[in-house]
Amino acid sequence: MGPRDILEEISEGKITVEEAEARLTGYVTTDAGRFDAARERRRGLPEAVFAPGKTTAEIVALVEASLETTGRAIVTRVDQTAVTAVRESIDADLAYDERSSVLVVHAPDFEPPVLDARVGIVTGGTADAVPAGEAAAIVRETGATVERIEDVGVANLTRIVDQLPVLREQDVLIVVAGREGALPTVVAGLVDVPVIGLPASSGYGHAGDGEAALSGMLQSCTVLSVVNIDAGFVAGAQAGLIARAIAAARGD
Amino acid sequence: MGPRDILEEISEGKITVEEAEARLTGYVTTDAGRFDAARERRRGLPEAVFAPGKTTAEIVALVEASLETTGRAIVTRVDQTAVTAVRESIDADLAYDERSSVLVVHAPDFEPPVLDARVGIVTGGTADAVPAGEAAAIVRETGATVERIEDVGVANLTRIVDQLPVLREQDVLIVVAGREGALPTVVAGLVDVPVIGLPASSGYGHAGDGEAALSGMLQSCTVLSVVNIDAGFVAGAQAGLIARAIAAARGD
Amino acid sequence: MGPRDILEEISEGKITVEEAEARLTGYVTTDAGRFDAARERRRGLPEAVFAPGKTTAEIVALVEASLETTGRAIVTRVDQTAVTAVRESIDADLAYDERSSVLVVHAPDFEPPVLDARVGIVTGGTADAVPAGEAAAIVRETGATVERIEDVGVANLTRIVDQLPVLREQDVLIVVAGREGALPTVVAGLVDVPVIGLPASSGYGHAGDGEAALSGMLQSCTVLSVVNIDAGFVAGAQAGLIARAIAAARGD
Amino acid sequence: MGPRDILEEISEGKITVEEAEARLTGYVTTDAGRFDAARERRRGLPEAVFAPGKTTAEIVALVEASLETTGRAIVTRVDQTAVTAVRESIDADLAYDERSSVLVVHAPDFEPPVLDARVGIVTGGTADAVPAGEAAAIVRETGATVERIEDVGVANLTRIVDQLPVLREQDVLIVVAGREGALPTVVAGLVDVPVIGLPASSGYGHAGDGEAALSGMLQSCTVLSVVNIDAGFVAGAQAGLIARAIAAARGD
Amino acid sequence: MGPRDILEEISEGKITVEEAEARLTGYVTTDAGRFDAARERRRGLPEAVFAPGKTTAEIVALVEASLETTGRAIVTRVDQTAVTAVRESIDADLAYDERSSVLVVHAPDFEPPVLDARVGIVTGGTADAVPAGEAAAIVRETGATVERIEDVGVANLTRIVDQLPVLREQDVLIVVAGREGALPTVVAGLVDVPVIGLPASSGYGHAGDGEAALSGMLQSCTVLSVVNIDAGFVAGAQAGLIARAIAAARGD
Amino acid sequence: MGPRDILEEISEGKITVEEAEARLTGYVTTDAGRFDAARERRRGLPEAVFAPGKTTAEIVALVEASLETTGRAIVTRVDQTAVTAVRESIDADLAYDERSSVLVVHAPDFEPPVLDARVGIVTGGTADAVPAGEAAAIVRETGATVERIEDVGVANLTRIVDQLPVLREQDVLIVVAGREGALPTVVAGLVDVPVIGLPASSGYGHAGDGEAALSGMLQSCTVLSVVNIDAGFVAGAQAGLIARAIAAARGD
Amino acid sequence: MGPRDILEEISEGKITVEEAEARLTGYVTTDAGRFDAARERRRGLPEAVFAPGKTTAEIVALVEASLETTGRAIVTRVDQTAVTAVRESIDADLAYDERSSVLVVHAPDFEPPVLDARVGIVTGGTADAVPAGEAAAIVRETGATVERIEDVGVANLTRIVDQLPVLREQDVLIVVAGREGALPTVVAGLVDVPVIGLPASSGYGHAGDGEAALSGMLQSCTVLSVVNIDAGFVAGAQAGLIARAIAAARGD
Amino acid sequence: MGPRDILEEISEGKITVEEAEARLTGYVTTDAGRFDAARERRRGLPEAVFAPGKTTAEIVALVEASLETTGRAIVTRVDQTAVTAVRESIDADLAYDERSSVLVVHAPDFEPPVLDARVGIVTGGTADAVPAGEAAAIVRETGATVERIEDVGVANLTRIVDQLPVLREQDVLIVVAGREGALPTVVAGLVDVPVIGLPASSGYGHAGDGEAALSGMLQSCTVLSVVNIDAGFVAGAQAGLIARAIAAARGD
Repeated sequence: MGPRDILEEISEGKITVEEAEARLTGYVTTDAGRFDAARERRRGLPEAVFAPGKTTAEIVALVEASLETTGRAIVTRVDQTAVTAVRESIDADLAYDERSSVLVVHAPDFEPPVLDARVGIVTGGTADAVPAGEAAAIVRETGATVERIEDVGVANLTRIVDQLPVLREQDVLIVVAGREGALPTVVAGLVDVPVIGLPASSGYGHAGDGEAALSGMLQSCTVLSVVNIDAGFVAGAQAGLIARAIAAARGD
Repeated sequence: MGPRDILEEISEGKITVEEAEARLTGYVTTDAGRFDAARERRRGLPEAVFAPGKTTAEIVALVEASLETTGRAIVTRVDQTAVTAVRESIDADLAYDERSSVLVVHAPDFEPPVLDARVGIVTGGTADAVPAGEAAAIVRETGATVERIEDVGVANLTRIVDQLPVLREQDVLIVVAGREGALPTVVAGLVDVPVIGLPASSGYGHAGDGEAALSGMLQSCTVLSVVNIDAGFVAGAQAGLIARAIAAARGD
Repeated sequence: MGPRDILEEISEGKITVEEAEARLTGYVTTDAGRFDAARERRRGLPEAVFAPGKTTAEIVALVEASLETTGRAIVTRVDQTAVTAVRESIDADLAYDERSSVLVVHAPDFEPPVLDARVGIVTGGTADAVPAGEAAAIVRETGATVERIEDVGVANLTRIVDQLPVLREQDVLIVVAGREGALPTVVAGLVDVPVIGLPASSGYGHAGDGEAALSGMLQSCTVLSVVNIDAGFVAGAQAGLIARAIAAARGD
Repeated sequence: MGPRDILEEISEGKITVEEAEARLTGYVTTDAGRFDAARERRRGLPEAVFAPGKTTAEIVALVEASLETTGRAIVTRVDQTAVTAVRESIDADLAYDERSSVLVVHAPDFEPPVLDARVGIVTGGTADAVPAGEAAAIVRETGATVERIEDVGVANLTRIVDQLPVLREQDVLIVVAGREGALPTVVAGLVDVPVIGLPASSGYGHAGDGEAALSGMLQSCTVLSVVNIDAGFVAGAQAGLIARAIAAARGD
Repeated sequence: MGPRDILEEISEGKITVEEAEARLTGYVTTDAGRFDAARERRRGLPEAVFAPGKTTAEIVALVEASLETTGRAIVTRVDQTAVTAVRESIDADLAYDERSSVLVVHAPDFEPPVLDARVGIVTGGTADAVPAGEAAAIVRETGATVERIEDVGVANLTRIVDQLPVLREQDVLIVVAGREGALPTVVAGLVDVPVIGLPASSGYGHAGDGEAALSGMLQSCTVLSVVNIDAGFVAGAQAGLIARAIAAARGD
Repeated sequence: MGPRDILEEISEGKITVEEAEARLTGYVTTDAGRFDAARERRRGLPEAVFAPGKTTAEIVALVEASLETTGRAIVTRVDQTAVTAVRESIDADLAYDERSSVLVVHAPDFEPPVLDARVGIVTGGTADAVPAGEAAAIVRETGATVERIEDVGVANLTRIVDQLPVLREQDVLIVVAGREGALPTVVAGLVDVPVIGLPASSGYGHAGDGEAALSGMLQSCTVLSVVNIDAGFVAGAQAGLIARAIAAARGD
Repeated sequence: MGPRDILEEISEGKITVEEAEARLTGYVTTDAGRFDAARERRRGLPEAVFAPGKTTAEIVALVEASLETTGRAIVTRVDQTAVTAVRESIDADLAYDERSSVLVVHAPDFEPPVLDARVGIVTGGTADAVPAGEAAAIVRETGATVERIEDVGVANLTRIVDQLPVLREQDVLIVVAGREGALPTVVAGLVDVPVIGLPASSGYGHAGDGEAALSGMLQSCTVLSVVNIDAGFVAGAQAGLIARAIAAARGD
Repeated sequence: MGPRDILEEISEGKITVEEAEARLTGYVTTDAGRFDAARERRRGLPEAVFAPGKTTAEIVALVEASLETTGRAIVTRVDQTAVTAVRESIDADLAYDERSSVLVVHAPDFEPPVLDARVGIVTGGTADAVPAGEAAAIVRETGATVERIEDVGVANLTRIVDQLPVLREQDVLIVVAGREGALPTVVAGLVDVPVIGLPASSGYGHAGDGEAALSGMLQSCTVLSVVNIDAGFVAGAQAGLIARAIAAARGD
């Protein structure tokens, strides 16, 4: 049904203004709810505040707005100072992961969603902890179960083979890799679920800062899709969307 | 169960050699069947032959090997000459899409899989036809239903809004875009299913050949995962993996 | 009339030395007035001092010179220390926008120009505030009316559609965008006035720091012209030149 | 007036369906007319067909569609073969500029627009002829007067000074430059109208193919906006939009 | 012993002019022998003629010079036309590998060297055949034994494990890889001999043409040294130098 | 002998579980020994801890683990703070080279290996000291003899010629160079042993930070293999592997 | 003496119009002579026609114009077809160097300049012949003596040392190098005259096409100035300017 | 006379050892004098110490060595701390230019050279002061006269024309430019002496940090040679070499 049909139906009184608006735009907007109702309703994904470049006051205000409209708030790449400010101004449950600099805030009455789906997050070393932690936080907020599979490196294949049973129990895999970024390719060759490559900005010298890893994942001779360097939020959210689709099909 | 456990079980006679091999490697290898049994069994994805740089004789041989072991063959970026050679040497059903240069061959007794899942492939213009066609061919071979949504450009939003109902009926979306690559971002803001961005090598001048589109998709302010420029096969296969997981959850 | 004609006229006494100089060079230069009389007279644009790499003393001196010859001074990317120094040494009206680090100084008797033309400055998020503020300051100094249209993002089309009436009332639009830089393309598809794309150095990872946004705007499938990353001054001045031409045609 | 107001007005019978559609989308779409009515109505710019990658049959079809809905067609980067095919299948007035590979087709009863505005197109050498010709064709189709100012190079300043009177009579300038791309900067320092820099893909070696010219224009120490390398169509269309705004203000 | 000592010895008549020259320069030069005596004597490596950009006549002349002074000639990246010309003008044993475009010519009385050392050349697919063949030809000419290990890809680990015994029998390994270039990393994690990574210019899209493979090898989390993209000659010669050192230590 | 044969042997009781595991994986893994036993056993190379991005506590823990399982620890790019922490918590012999930021720790009873092989490390200036020192530390730990040849620059050929006798006494050469990276090419033209080029991140401006040096070494017209910019560890370890192979052939 | 003084002098009748024009612009322009009189007079350098992208007819016309106004013409990167056309239409002395594709045409009565200065052009191999030949042609046209020093490579230092006496007899050196571009650095370390580095587009793989050579020359640890890749004309002309200055000082 | 002839002469007692060494190597080396005697004797250029990455103690030591062997020392990019340390430890005449961070030290009895030649250094703005100052210091040390021509920008041609008489009095010109780097092209079109382009790392956004300026100078449509970004030392030394050649020809 195209927009003209909708307009004709409203003109004929068959549908209400609200219904027409919802059909035309995909969501009803209210004065209070623009910030986050949008993404939560459209994509089932919690919106996250990207902290760099924002003042502490702005971060606090965005957390408040997010809590009011969706019952929770996620802030990525946020430092301890801003976390303390949030803690002092807002009465809610805070969980801050210092390693990956992710802050998750739940209103006292927030009931987190639960999805019947498992997302595995695979890392090769400690250098991958930051984007992996960011991805894990957002996956958890979608309600999927997160399994961390750590210290799996391409230069030591036995370690990967040891973890095969766990890898194969997941519905989706996020595979983080810096340096040459070969791990997602090796893992994707061993499992039958979708693999999302997440390049980490480790490495140095030529094509350092994650560029070699990104290039390698894009050129992979197996089947992968990829997100930007260090884009833990995007990888987690994309895995969450897939997990949600699978859980819905399972009858959640 | 790690490899050592498997070895102990075989040592104790609890499992056969074949079973041990399958568990250890993820697939049984035979002399004839290495080529494609591998990927089909591991990932449920048909293997494809990438034609560039291969001689006609090699392509024919690879098609034959693929047909024998898996009942079908897919050749990407293949020209008419090689297609004719395949047609003349092999007795099978051929489907060749000249626009996207994809050849699909089915053995007479091949029964294609059927998945209860829908994959939408969205394009902005005729320049996107080649990678979109490649993606469509591989999705069809996974058994998912393909819906093509064409001529949807960011410079004309009404056209996108017109297609919203169709977009929202899909389980996964592949969104192809050349030039500035903004279409996947706009589409992903309107739907609640996973979106895979496929950059097309259209465009010219600075960051032409798909680089601007790739960069834009990686930097997207919404949630996307991405494949390499013109990587229609990868996009189609990744969408197929997601579709298969959803269909399996639906009880296929 | 070429230079030889001018020389012949002066040789014949038909024109004065001053007139010949003005015709030959486009402007008369004086000892005191080289700094800014030049650009103001030639292009009707106030000259701006780019603060990075200059000492506080140099900035103060340049502001003084600018005030004496043109009645005002604009300093971009200037910090609070230099602003304080200017405030203490110069008796004039100061306006400092901390967010965009722009300082505007008017001599007490300066009469700002007024143009009958409107320039809209469109931003998608708080990350765009710095170049947008720089652009706004220079547009205001040309005398055009500035309209700020904020929080308009490509991932949420309704917000753009809501603002269409305001967008269509402007004579020129500056559209700021970081990350994938798609906003100018979407906006330019909806209006019939010139759009100038201003890429912002937000974003991270591959093609971060505004490169993806710049590439996307250059590759835009609609009609745009573009300025350098974060070049708020240039975008504002170019919009001011267009506004001035329109206002002049309106009979200002 | 936002979309909700429009919907309420239609619901109350105050406006017709067609009016509501036009207000909501910015243009009425018909079955036949999507192709080009869109851009012509929205931006007052003729749509152009970008020939590379399209078959002769497709080009002919697009020309026909364009002629039917807007009375004219423009095809850029088109070769002689396709031009002959268009000539043989379509009864209309054809103008083909072999140098810049632009084809302009007018239906017999097409009345071209006339704008009271002048656009100057400045080039430094024969290498700039292709993008300059493309820009000129599109400016002419907007109805503005085109003035070509040729053989003006930065290594020979007298030639520029000779042309100053002509340069200053224009309302907008497109300045084409390859190699180091310095000409737009030098010209913009001498005039008081908006200058659009158009980098040409001449040059060789490091940063050849127009990249040095593009970089130089983006870094210009004067006020310019820029389009992509060889983007004659975009430069011409942007100049046309500015010319149209000026002409409208003049009372066209 | 520094140059001054040599000069003093010659001055004192302790050594001859020829001996002084040889000590000072590392080799005696003669009119006829400059071309190849040099590298053969200095590094024990046969010199190769890089054919691209040379005329057939030049290639024939260089082959003749090489044969006369060292008893053999190697030409890389040479086409059939030049090979035919060499065959017609020179009476010698020719071996031409069409796949890798390497021509090896031995004078009738040439006695090839024999080294007690083994060099393994590992490839992942047919796309690697060209640089692998070039490497193999030069290794063979150093006298080392060449073992080709083919069709070993990172997306199928069992295949690598199957080849472990052969891989571990080699003294040096050259590992060729295109696309993401992960194979040398995986192989180097399994063996205890020096591994030389040779990136192949397969791949397409972002960082195609071997750049992703090169970057990945440089960033490898294991121990590798690397040569330029498609530099089969360099990889083979470096492996040959290592093989020669080992063979010498074995008492060859 | 492929994996299937191994499995059949174990099934027939011909080999033990441990032996099968070792043959299949290349090494036996124990709970305690994964960290470093792996690389030491596989490649005969000591594992090194790359300090950047790790906390002091993590570095201390990794040093302890390394000491327990292999009797020594190497930490690269480590600062004085972490070195002090290691000194205070661990009872062992520490050697810290402040210039190259390498820490080597030996357990009191550790007996370092001794190899009958010489590795020369050639540098052009003080800017090369950091990667050269890192390379020297790892070579020493392999047991090979390290010879430092310093202040050898391409702009002063006599200095190189003076060092020729020393250069020619080595079994392998690591040649460090920043700026234009020409030194490895010049040296490799004068010796008959394998040369490993190690680009240093000195230099400034275009292709600074080692990129020009890396490119130059990859393009070298003589025979070299190369490691990443500043990758002293990799260069040292690769030289160590070659030295070990030569020493083994000598009958160590 | 500034322009105002000149204008005052002409106004007072002290100087003629022609003299004023010459002083103001640096050269007198005539209708016929703009093309080449300009550069010849200003810089003492013959203008050259860059053939790529020009039609045969255009090349012939430009040669004619050049001959008429300056007595000679130089065309670079010109093919045999255009040379034949020039030969057939113009009665003059033609010299065409097929290797470097340079055509030099002298009018029958042209008297070439003679400078008492020597320019050495140093090359490492046949790959450098094209830019070296282009440079030689333009140096010869300036009247300086050209000395070609060929087959001098950094991998064979004796060859360079052999040529030292010749190298030191030159007033200026152009040193051509492809691949790693180290030759100018080595040569500049051995002589006391200005060295101009000319990167050649030989090489392949990473930073091929002259980029590695250009980077290496810019990063040189000795004193060099550089021109663009393959810019034989620019190198030759710059050397010619230096030669002319030296010759003038010698009293030419 | 080749090396063999020299060896024969020494063998015959015709020349001394010292003379042979000097002829063979181009300079006599002594234990004390390697550091700087080398460059001073070979090229007539004072050696400079590049301070970044060196400790204060190392800088002091290098200054002492330089003073002892050549009577002076130059240190570039050196901060106040190191300058103070030099002042305290060494009894000599110090001149430190804070703006360009260049330190020049003369021994009390050092007699600076004097050359009859003029080098002009042209800058467009204050951003160019650092490399310009570095260039000026080294030119002065060669003995040539330095003329600074400041505030000459391409956006204001009259300023350039005003300076033409001064520009034309110089023997060599160094033209510094950041941003788009057009100034050397414009200047070179107006003078008849060699121009050396020196790109400055001003600018921001795309191709900032001097890359646009470098590219523009390499692509210049006039005759220039170029040095690396901010390479004031190289530009000054190259200009000094040219000045020295001219002065020598004048009979200095």
